Amino acid sequence: MKVYKIPEATVMRLSIYSRYLKQLMDDDKETVSSGEIAIGVGVSSAQVRKDLAYFGEFGTRGVGYKVEELYGYLMKILGLDRRWNIIIIGAGNLGSAFALYQGFMDRGFTISAILDVDKKIIGTELEGVKIEGMDVLDSRVREQNITLGVITVPAVAAQEVTDQLVNSGVKAILNFSPRVLKVPNEVILRNVDLSVNLEVLSFYLAFNR
Amino acid sequence: MKVYKIPEATVMRLSIYSRYLKQLMDDDKETVSSGEIAIGVGVSSAQVRKDLAYFGEFGTRGVGYKVEELYGYLMKILGLDRRWNIIIIGAGNLGSAFALYQGFMDRGFTISAILDVDKKIIGTELEGVKIEGMDVLDSRVREQNITLGVITVPAVAAQEVTDQLVNSGVKAILNFSPRVLKVPNEVILRNVDLSVNLEVLSFYLAFNR
Repeated sequence: MKVYKIPEATVMRLSIYSRYLKQLMDDDKETVSSGEIAIGVGVSSAQVRKDLAYFGEFGTRGVGYKVEELYGYLMKILGLDRRWNIIIIGAGNLGSAFALYQGFMDRGFTISAILDVDKKIIGTELEGVKIEGMDVLDSRVREQNITLGVITVPAVAAQEVTDQLVNSGVKAILNFSPRVLKVPNEVILRNVDLSVNLEVLSFYLAFNR
Repeated sequence: MKVYKIPEATVMRLSIYSRYLKQLMDDDKETVSSGEIAIGVGVSSAQVRKDLAYFGEFGTRGVGYKVEELYGYLMKILGLDRRWNIIIIGAGNLGSAFALYQGFMDRGFTISAILDVDKKIIGTELEGVKIEGMDVLDSRVREQNITLGVITVPAVAAQEVTDQLVNSGVKAILNFSPRVLKVPNEVILRNVDLSVNLEVLSFYLAFNR
Protein backbone atom coordinates (compact mmCIF):
# COMPACT_ATOMS: atom_id res chain seq x y z
CA MET A 1 0.00 0.00 0.00
CA LYS A 2 1.21 3.50 -0.75
CA VAL A 3 2.24 5.89 2.02
CA TYR A 4 0.86 9.43 1.78
CA LYS A 5 1.84 12.63 3.48
CA ILE A 6 -1.68 13.85 4.19
CA PRO A 7 -2.96 12.02 7.29
CA GLU A 8 -6.00 9.89 6.59
CA ALA A 9 -7.77 11.49 9.56
CA THR A 10 -7.35 14.86 7.83
CA VAL A 11 -8.92 13.50 4.65
CA MET A 12 -11.87 12.14 6.60
CA ARG A 13 -12.34 15.50 8.30
CA LEU A 14 -12.19 17.33 4.94
CA SER A 15 -15.08 15.14 3.86
CA ILE A 16 -16.99 16.06 7.03
CA TYR A 17 -16.17 19.78 6.65
CA SER A 18 -17.48 19.70 3.07
CA ARG A 19 -20.80 18.24 4.23
CA TYR A 20 -21.10 20.91 6.89
CA LEU A 21 -20.34 23.62 4.31
CA LYS A 22 -23.07 22.13 2.10
CA GLN A 23 -25.52 22.50 5.01
CA LEU A 24 -24.42 26.15 5.38
CA MET A 25 -24.89 26.73 1.63
CA ASP A 26 -28.40 25.30 1.89
CA ASP A 27 -28.99 27.87 4.67
CA ASP A 28 -27.65 30.65 2.38
CA LYS A 29 -24.72 31.40 4.69
CA GLU A 30 -21.95 33.15 2.74
CA THR A 31 -18.95 33.22 5.10
CA VAL A 32 -17.83 31.01 7.98
CA SER A 33 -14.94 31.10 10.47
CA SER A 34 -12.74 28.14 11.39
CA GLY A 35 -14.28 28.41 14.85
CA GLU A 36 -17.79 28.01 13.47
CA ILE A 37 -16.76 25.02 11.36
CA ALA A 38 -15.06 23.58 14.44
CA ILE A 39 -18.20 23.86 16.57
CA GLY A 40 -20.37 22.58 13.72
CA VAL A 41 -18.43 19.35 13.30
CA GLY A 42 -17.05 18.87 16.82
CA VAL A 43 -13.28 19.46 16.49
CA SER A 44 -10.98 22.31 17.60
CA SER A 45 -10.62 25.40 15.40
CA ALA A 46 -6.84 24.82 15.38
CA GLN A 47 -7.56 21.40 13.88
CA VAL A 48 -9.69 22.94 11.13
CA ARG A 49 -6.96 25.45 10.25
CA LYS A 50 -4.26 22.76 10.34
CA ASP A 51 -6.24 20.43 8.10
CA LEU A 52 -6.90 23.16 5.54
CA ALA A 53 -3.30 24.41 5.67
CA TYR A 54 -2.11 21.20 3.97
CA PHE A 55 -3.70 22.51 0.80
CA GLY A 56 -2.83 26.22 0.84
CA GLU A 57 -4.35 29.48 2.04
CA PHE A 58 -8.12 29.57 1.94
CA GLY A 59 -9.48 32.11 4.40
CA THR A 60 -9.12 35.85 4.97
CA ARG A 61 -8.13 37.03 8.46
CA GLY A 62 -11.10 38.62 10.22
CA VAL A 63 -13.52 37.52 7.49
CA GLY A 64 -13.15 33.77 7.51
CA TYR A 65 -13.88 31.51 4.57
CA LYS A 66 -16.29 32.03 1.71
CA VAL A 67 -18.59 29.05 2.18
CA GLU A 68 -19.22 28.20 -1.47
CA GLU A 69 -15.60 28.74 -2.49
CA LEU A 70 -14.22 26.57 0.32
CA TYR A 71 -16.82 23.89 -0.47
CA GLY A 72 -15.70 23.90 -4.09
CA TYR A 73 -12.04 23.62 -3.09
CA LEU A 74 -12.72 20.74 -0.71
CA MET A 75 -14.79 18.82 -3.25
CA LYS A 76 -11.95 19.22 -5.76
CA ILE A 77 -9.34 18.12 -3.20
CA LEU A 78 -11.48 15.09 -2.34
CA GLY A 79 -11.65 14.19 -6.03
CA LEU A 80 -15.41 14.79 -6.00
CA ASP A 81 -15.42 17.20 -8.94
CA ARG A 82 -15.96 14.15 -11.16
CA ARG A 83 -17.92 10.90 -11.11
CA TRP A 84 -16.52 7.61 -9.82
CA ASN A 85 -17.89 4.27 -10.90
CA ILE A 86 -18.07 1.50 -8.31
CA ILE A 87 -18.33 -2.28 -8.48
CA ILE A 88 -19.66 -4.17 -5.45
CA ILE A 89 -18.56 -7.78 -4.99
CA GLY A 90 -20.91 -9.64 -2.67
CA ALA A 91 -24.62 -8.87 -2.64
CA GLY A 92 -25.39 -10.31 0.80
CA ASN A 93 -26.71 -8.23 3.68
CA LEU A 94 -23.77 -5.86 3.81
CA GLY A 95 -23.42 -5.51 0.04
CA SER A 96 -27.13 -4.82 -0.24
CA ALA A 97 -27.01 -2.27 2.57
CA PHE A 98 -24.10 -0.59 0.83
CA ALA A 99 -25.88 -0.53 -2.53
CA LEU A 100 -29.03 0.89 -0.93
CA TYR A 101 -27.15 3.43 1.20
CA GLN A 102 -28.33 6.96 0.52
CA GLY A 103 -25.91 9.78 -0.06
CA PHE A 104 -23.39 8.33 -2.51
CA MET A 105 -24.92 9.76 -5.64
CA ASP A 106 -24.77 13.41 -4.64
CA ARG A 107 -21.11 12.97 -3.67
CA GLY A 108 -20.17 11.72 -7.13
CA PHE A 109 -20.31 7.93 -6.77
CA THR A 110 -22.28 5.63 -9.06
CA ILE A 111 -22.78 1.94 -8.37
CA SER A 112 -22.18 0.55 -11.86
CA ALA A 113 -22.10 -3.19 -11.20
CA ILE A 114 -22.90 -5.70 -8.44
CA LEU A 115 -21.51 -9.24 -8.64
CA ASP A 116 -22.06 -12.35 -6.53
CA VAL A 117 -21.47 -16.09 -6.77
CA ASP A 118 -24.91 -17.06 -5.44
CA LYS A 119 -27.04 -18.32 -8.35
CA LYS A 120 -30.20 -17.65 -6.30
CA ILE A 121 -29.64 -13.88 -6.39
CA ILE A 122 -27.88 -13.49 -9.75
CA GLY A 123 -30.42 -11.87 -12.07
CA THR A 124 -32.26 -9.99 -9.31
CA GLU A 125 -31.87 -6.22 -8.95
CA LEU A 126 -30.57 -3.83 -6.29
CA GLU A 127 -31.24 -0.12 -6.80
CA GLY A 128 -31.87 -0.78 -10.47
CA VAL A 129 -28.55 -2.60 -10.94
CA LYS A 130 -28.80 -6.25 -11.98
CA ILE A 131 -26.74 -8.67 -9.87
CA GLU A 132 -24.40 -10.64 -12.16
CA GLY A 133 -21.94 -13.51 -11.86
CA MET A 134 -18.20 -13.11 -11.29
CA ASP A 135 -17.48 -14.08 -14.91
CA VAL A 136 -18.36 -10.56 -16.12
CA LEU A 137 -15.94 -8.82 -13.73
CA ASP A 138 -13.23 -7.91 -16.26
CA SER A 139 -15.63 -6.75 -18.96
CA ARG A 140 -17.75 -4.66 -16.54
CA VAL A 141 -14.68 -2.89 -15.11
CA ARG A 142 -13.32 -2.16 -18.58
CA GLU A 143 -16.57 -1.19 -20.31
CA GLN A 144 -17.97 0.92 -17.49
CA ASN A 145 -14.69 2.60 -16.55
CA ILE A 146 -14.87 1.34 -12.95
CA THR A 147 -12.05 2.47 -10.64
CA LEU A 148 -13.41 1.57 -7.19
CA GLY A 149 -14.17 -1.92 -5.89
CA VAL A 150 -16.15 -2.65 -2.73
CA ILE A 151 -15.65 -6.06 -1.10
CA THR A 152 -18.58 -7.36 0.95
CA VAL A 153 -17.90 -11.09 0.70
CA PRO A 154 -17.20 -13.51 3.59
CA ALA A 155 -13.65 -13.29 5.00
CA VAL A 156 -12.67 -16.64 3.52
CA ALA A 157 -13.27 -15.38 -0.04
CA ALA A 158 -11.87 -11.88 0.43
CA GLN A 159 -8.28 -12.37 -0.79
CA GLU A 160 -9.35 -14.23 -3.93
CA VAL A 161 -11.87 -11.50 -4.78
CA THR A 162 -9.21 -8.87 -4.08
CA ASP A 163 -6.82 -10.55 -6.53
CA GLN A 164 -9.56 -10.70 -9.16
CA LEU A 165 -10.41 -7.01 -8.64
CA VAL A 166 -6.74 -6.02 -8.91
CA ASN A 167 -6.36 -8.05 -12.12
CA SER A 168 -9.46 -6.43 -13.58
CA GLY A 169 -7.79 -3.01 -13.30
CA VAL A 170 -9.62 -1.51 -10.31
CA LYS A 171 -7.43 1.20 -8.72
CA ALA A 172 -8.79 1.32 -5.17
CA ILE A 173 -10.61 -1.14 -2.92
CA LEU A 174 -12.87 -0.62 0.07
CA ASN A 175 -12.81 -3.84 2.09
CA PHE A 176 -15.56 -4.68 4.58
CA SER A 177 -14.35 -8.19 5.33
CA PRO A 178 -12.50 -8.73 8.64
CA ARG A 179 -9.39 -10.02 6.88
CA VAL A 180 -5.91 -8.56 6.33
CA LEU A 181 -5.63 -8.31 2.54
CA LYS A 182 -2.61 -8.00 0.29
CA VAL A 183 -2.65 -5.68 -2.73
CA PRO A 184 0.13 -4.43 -5.05
CA ASN A 185 1.73 -1.07 -4.26
CA GLU A 186 -0.18 0.79 -6.95
CA VAL A 187 -3.61 -0.21 -5.59
CA ILE A 188 -5.12 1.70 -2.68
CA LEU A 189 -6.75 -0.44 -0.01
CA ARG A 190 -9.00 0.81 2.76
CA ASN A 191 -10.46 -1.46 5.40
CA VAL A 192 -13.78 -0.85 7.11
CA ASP A 193 -13.97 -3.58 9.69
CA LEU A 194 -17.21 -3.33 11.63
CA SER A 195 -15.62 -5.17 14.59
CA VAL A 196 -12.59 -2.88 14.65
CA ASN A 197 -14.91 0.10 14.94
CA LEU A 198 -16.61 -1.47 17.95
CA GLU A 199 -13.21 -2.23 19.45
CA VAL A 200 -12.15 1.40 19.26
CA LEU A 201 -15.17 2.10 21.48
CA SER A 202 -14.45 -0.75 23.89
CA PHE A 203 -10.84 0.42 24.12
CA TYR A 204 -11.84 3.95 25.14
CA LEU A 205 -14.47 2.66 27.55
CA ALA A 206 -11.99 0.26 29.16
CA PHE A 207 -9.07 2.68 29.12
CA ASN A 208 -10.94 5.42 30.97
CA ARG A 209 -12.71 3.35 33.56
CA MET B 1 -16.39 14.17 22.75
CA LYS B 2 -13.39 13.26 24.88
CA VAL B 3 -9.87 13.73 23.61
CA TYR B 4 -7.46 10.85 24.19
CA LYS B 5 -3.72 10.61 24.04
CA ILE B 6 -3.56 7.29 22.21
CA PRO B 7 -4.16 7.95 18.51
CA GLU B 8 -7.26 6.28 17.17
CA ALA B 9 -5.23 4.86 14.29
CA THR B 10 -3.03 3.08 16.88
CA VAL B 11 -6.09 1.55 18.52
CA MET B 12 -7.36 0.30 15.15
CA ARG B 13 -3.97 -1.24 14.43
CA LEU B 14 -3.89 -2.93 17.85
CA SER B 15 -7.15 -4.58 16.89
CA ILE B 16 -5.65 -5.72 13.59
CA TYR B 17 -2.44 -6.95 15.30
CA SER B 18 -4.52 -8.98 17.75
CA ARG B 19 -6.36 -10.70 14.89
CA TYR B 20 -3.06 -11.51 13.20
CA LEU B 21 -1.67 -12.91 16.48
CA LYS B 22 -4.80 -15.06 16.75
CA GLN B 23 -4.04 -16.46 13.28
CA LEU B 24 -0.47 -17.22 14.43
CA MET B 25 -1.79 -18.94 17.58
CA ASP B 26 -4.05 -21.08 15.41
CA ASP B 27 -0.90 -22.02 13.46
CA ASP B 28 0.87 -22.93 16.76
CA LYS B 29 3.50 -20.21 16.30
CA GLU B 30 5.05 -19.30 19.68
CA THR B 31 7.14 -16.19 19.03
CA VAL B 32 6.96 -13.39 16.48
CA SER B 33 9.09 -10.32 15.67
CA SER B 34 7.76 -6.81 15.05
CA GLY B 35 9.01 -7.26 11.49
CA GLU B 36 6.89 -10.37 10.99
CA ILE B 37 3.81 -8.66 12.44
CA ALA B 38 4.54 -5.68 10.16
CA ILE B 39 4.66 -7.84 7.04
CA GLY B 40 1.61 -9.81 8.16
CA VAL B 41 -0.62 -6.76 8.49
CA GLY B 42 1.01 -4.40 5.99
CA VAL B 43 2.60 -1.65 8.09
CA SER B 44 6.26 -0.82 8.94
CA SER B 45 7.96 -2.61 11.83
CA ALA B 46 8.76 0.80 13.35
CA GLN B 47 5.00 1.44 13.39
CA VAL B 48 4.35 -1.84 15.21
CA ARG B 49 6.98 -1.03 17.86
CA LYS B 50 5.69 2.54 18.25
CA ASP B 51 2.09 1.40 18.65
CA LEU B 52 3.01 -1.18 21.28
CA ALA B 53 5.33 1.25 23.11
CA TYR B 54 2.30 3.30 24.22
CA PHE B 55 1.46 0.47 26.57
CA GLY B 56 4.85 -0.59 27.93
CA GLU B 57 7.58 -3.10 27.13
CA PHE B 58 6.33 -6.30 25.55
CA GLY B 59 9.08 -7.96 23.55
CA THR B 60 12.57 -9.31 24.23
CA ARG B 61 15.44 -8.09 22.03
CA GLY B 62 16.52 -10.82 19.62
CA VAL B 63 13.62 -13.07 20.59
CA GLY B 64 10.61 -10.95 19.73
CA TYR B 65 7.19 -11.28 21.28
CA LYS B 66 5.55 -14.35 22.79
CA VAL B 67 2.50 -14.67 20.56
CA GLU B 68 -0.02 -15.80 23.15
CA GLU B 69 1.20 -13.35 25.78
CA LEU B 70 1.10 -10.36 23.41
CA TYR B 71 -2.35 -11.46 22.20
CA GLY B 72 -3.58 -11.53 25.79
CA TYR B 73 -2.14 -8.08 26.50
CA LEU B 74 -3.71 -6.59 23.39
CA MET B 75 -7.12 -8.08 24.12
CA LYS B 76 -6.95 -6.61 27.63
CA ILE B 77 -5.86 -3.20 26.29
CA LEU B 78 -8.72 -3.25 23.79
CA GLY B 79 -11.17 -3.99 26.59
CA LEU B 80 -11.93 -7.39 25.09
CA ASP B 81 -11.22 -9.38 28.24
CA ARG B 82 -14.91 -8.98 29.08
CA ARG B 83 -18.28 -8.99 27.27
CA TRP B 84 -19.96 -5.87 25.89
CA ASN B 85 -23.68 -5.68 25.29
CA ILE B 86 -24.92 -3.78 22.25
CA ILE B 87 -28.22 -2.23 21.24
CA ILE B 88 -28.90 -1.57 17.55
CA ILE B 89 -31.33 1.22 16.66
CA GLY B 90 -32.65 0.81 13.13
CA ALA B 91 -33.26 -2.65 11.66
CA GLY B 92 -33.20 -1.63 7.99
CA ASN B 93 -30.63 -2.92 5.52
CA LEU B 94 -27.60 -1.60 7.36
CA GLY B 95 -28.86 -2.52 10.83
CA SER B 96 -29.67 -6.02 9.63
CA ALA B 97 -26.26 -6.36 7.97
CA PHE B 98 -24.64 -5.26 11.22
CA ALA B 99 -26.71 -7.69 13.30
CA LEU B 100 -25.88 -10.55 10.94
CA TYR B 101 -22.18 -9.63 10.64
CA GLN B 102 -19.95 -12.51 11.66
CA GLY B 103 -17.04 -12.02 13.98
CA PHE B 104 -18.47 -9.91 16.80
CA MET B 105 -19.18 -12.74 19.19
CA ASP B 106 -15.64 -14.11 19.40
CA ARG B 107 -14.34 -10.59 20.09
CA GLY B 108 -16.60 -10.16 23.12
CA PHE B 109 -19.63 -8.35 21.70
CA THR B 110 -23.22 -9.49 22.16
CA ILE B 111 -26.17 -7.94 20.34
CA SER B 112 -28.66 -7.72 23.19
CA ALA B 113 -31.44 -5.66 21.65
CA ILE B 114 -32.59 -4.35 18.26
CA LEU B 115 -35.15 -1.54 18.07
CA ASP B 116 -36.99 0.10 15.17
CA VAL B 117 -40.00 2.34 14.61
CA ASP B 118 -41.39 0.32 11.69
CA LYS B 119 -44.45 -1.65 12.89
CA LYS B 120 -44.05 -4.04 9.92
CA ILE B 121 -40.75 -5.43 11.28
CA ILE B 122 -41.34 -5.07 15.04
CA GLY B 123 -41.87 -8.59 16.34
CA THR B 124 -39.70 -10.25 13.69
CA GLU B 125 -36.29 -11.67 14.59
CA LEU B 126 -32.68 -11.03 13.54
CA GLU B 127 -30.05 -13.52 14.69
CA GLY B 128 -32.44 -14.74 17.38
CA VAL B 129 -33.03 -11.23 18.74
CA LYS B 130 -36.60 -9.95 18.52
CA ILE B 131 -36.98 -6.48 16.97
CA GLU B 132 -38.84 -4.24 19.43
CA GLY B 133 -40.26 -0.70 19.45
CA MET B 134 -38.40 2.36 20.73
CA ASP B 135 -40.56 2.43 23.89
CA VAL B 136 -38.48 -0.33 25.49
CA LEU B 137 -35.14 1.49 24.98
CA ASP B 138 -34.60 2.61 28.59
CA SER B 139 -35.63 -0.68 30.15
CA ARG B 140 -33.55 -2.79 27.73
CA VAL B 141 -30.40 -0.72 28.32
CA ARG B 142 -30.86 -0.89 32.10
CA GLU B 143 -31.94 -4.53 32.42
CA GLN B 144 -29.41 -5.94 29.97
CA ASN B 145 -26.49 -3.79 31.06
CA ILE B 146 -26.02 -2.32 27.58
CA THR B 147 -23.09 0.10 27.16
CA LEU B 148 -22.78 0.36 23.37
CA GLY B 149 -25.36 1.76 20.97
CA VAL B 150 -25.24 1.36 17.19
CA ILE B 151 -27.19 3.86 15.09
CA THR B 152 -28.35 2.63 11.69
CA VAL B 153 -31.33 4.93 11.16
CA PRO B 154 -31.83 7.48 8.34
CA ALA B 155 -29.84 10.70 8.77
CA VAL B 156 -32.95 12.74 9.54
CA ALA B 157 -33.67 10.66 12.67
CA ALA B 158 -30.07 10.26 13.86
CA GLN B 159 -29.80 13.14 16.35
CA GLU B 160 -33.10 12.28 18.05
CA VAL B 161 -32.06 8.63 18.39
CA THR B 162 -28.66 9.76 19.71
CA ASP B 163 -30.31 11.88 22.40
CA GLN B 164 -32.52 8.96 23.39
CA LEU B 165 -29.53 6.61 23.58
CA VAL B 166 -27.58 9.10 25.70
CA ASN B 167 -30.55 9.53 28.05
CA SER B 168 -30.91 5.77 28.36
CA GLY B 169 -27.39 5.56 29.80
CA VAL B 170 -25.43 4.15 26.86
CA LYS B 171 -21.73 5.09 27.21
CA ALA B 172 -20.54 4.87 23.61
CA ILE B 173 -22.20 5.16 20.21
CA LEU B 174 -21.22 3.87 16.80
CA ASN B 175 -22.97 6.05 14.23
CA PHE B 176 -23.50 4.85 10.66
CA SER B 177 -25.68 7.75 9.59
CA PRO B 178 -24.05 10.48 7.44
CA ARG B 179 -24.83 13.20 9.95
CA VAL B 180 -22.69 15.22 12.35
CA LEU B 181 -24.06 14.29 15.79
CA LYS B 182 -23.77 16.02 19.13
CA VAL B 183 -23.20 14.05 22.33
CA PRO B 184 -22.25 15.10 25.88
CA ASN B 185 -18.55 15.03 26.83
CA GLU B 186 -18.85 11.80 28.79
CA VAL B 187 -20.25 9.81 25.86
CA ILE B 188 -17.88 8.43 23.23
CA LEU B 189 -19.04 8.85 19.65
CA ARG B 190 -17.54 7.14 16.62
CA ASN B 191 -18.75 7.76 13.10
CA VAL B 192 -18.61 5.17 10.34
CA ASP B 193 -19.79 7.05 7.31
CA LEU B 194 -19.80 4.77 4.27
CA SER B 195 -19.47 7.77 1.94
CA VAL B 196 -16.52 9.20 3.86
CA ASN B 197 -14.70 5.91 3.40
CA LEU B 198 -15.25 6.08 -0.34
CA GLU B 199 -14.07 9.69 -0.34
CA VAL B 200 -10.77 8.76 1.29
CA LEU B 201 -10.22 6.52 -1.74
CA SER B 202 -11.28 9.16 -4.28
CA PHE B 203 -8.98 11.65 -2.53
CA TYR B 204 -5.94 9.39 -2.87
CA LEU B 205 -6.82 8.49 -6.45
CA ALA B 206 -7.27 12.16 -7.41
CA PHE B 207 -4.29 13.40 -5.39
CA ASN B 208 -1.84 11.03 -7.04
CA ARG B 209 -2.98 11.28 -10.59
